[in-house]
Amino acid sequence: MERVIIDMDEVIADPMGAMITWYNKEYGLPVEYSKMKGSWLLGFPEEHQKLIRERLYEPGFFRDLPVMKDSVDVLKEMNKRYEIFIVSAAMEFPNSLKDKYDWLMEHFPFFTWKQLVLSGEKRMVFGDHMIDDHVRHLQHFNGRKHLFTAAHNKDETGYERLNNWEEAASVFLK
Amino acid sequence: MERVIIDMDEVIADPMGAMITWYNKEYGLPVEYSKMKGSWLLGFPEEHQKLIRERLYEPGFFRDLPVMKDSVDVLKEMNKRYEIFIVSAAMEFPNSLKDKYDWLMEHFPFFTWKQLVLSGEKRMVFGDHMIDDHVRHLQHFNGRKHLFTAAHNKDETGYERLNNWEEAASVFLK
Repeated sequence: MERVIIDMDEVIADPMGAMITWYNKEYGLPVEYSKMKGSWLLGFPEEHQKLIRERLYEPGFFRDLPVMKDSVDVLKEMNKRYEIFIVSAAMEFPNSLKDKYDWLMEHFPFFTWKQLVLSGEKRMVFGDHMIDDHVRHLQHFNGRKHLFTAAHNKDETGYERLNNWEEAASVFLK
Repeated sequence: MERVIIDMDEVIADPMGAMITWYNKEYGLPVEYSKMKGSWLLGFPEEHQKLIRERLYEPGFFRDLPVMKDSVDVLKEMNKRYEIFIVSAAMEFPNSLKDKYDWLMEHFPFFTWKQLVLSGEKRMVFGDHMIDDHVRHLQHFNGRKHLFTAAHNKDETGYERLNNWEEAASVFLK
């Protein structure tokens, strides 16, 4: 069985979407997608970026994230055909660890706790495929690299892209 | 730089020791080391094993563990010469995740959060060396396997052993 390493944030969970929803409600200001190159944080007005960053450290933020469209259906099927590990570089946000566990078990009940990895970085992980929105994680990976499209990586070239989970299905479930 | 994957429980942290200390104080009963084959839990009287197991799930238990003798001094030096990752199969105990992060940052301040991995299992991790007290983690590892001696693995054969951190120093810092 081929092993597929799958990221959480911006791939199966939507912290950017949750933050924008909260920010719009709280401040009524727009975010600028064109400024998100490298990090979606940069799309928020500069005077609020510190506040946005602080929210990421708060317990609970990663517990209530929306699920990325089609990810549950596609991964439910992929889980029968591949050895799947969900690997999140979460250690920068230690209050997110239990939240991420609870979130995954709630929304993806077909996964077991044996399939979750919460790490500082990902260079020690190996497998046949990696699906991630960050080039910094893909670049060290030994297997086939799939850049999952996100606002912050629109300009990246040189990686095979998955634009959404429908496309992932066409690659992994064909 | 060679990569060394190092376990937490029974290798740098001492949950068995903490549990025995608590149990002796609470019940005044002895544990039987000869019965610990496979799991130190089996050394506790059968009627209390459920209670002992429940304690492992409680928030806080993994926060206050003793540090294994010489591990801080040896790893401080190893951290200069190797790429070290501390990898703990902690996901069975989701309340332990933040505790393990806090414990490591307190007792091993020369490590950064980038070096910690909390996972369900370890078969997706690769490196040059693995130091672990469980054969189930060593058996899938690609590199050199070092069985760290613990009460539950005394009878294991077929693996190179490290009986303590002084021995680890003689292997890794010679």
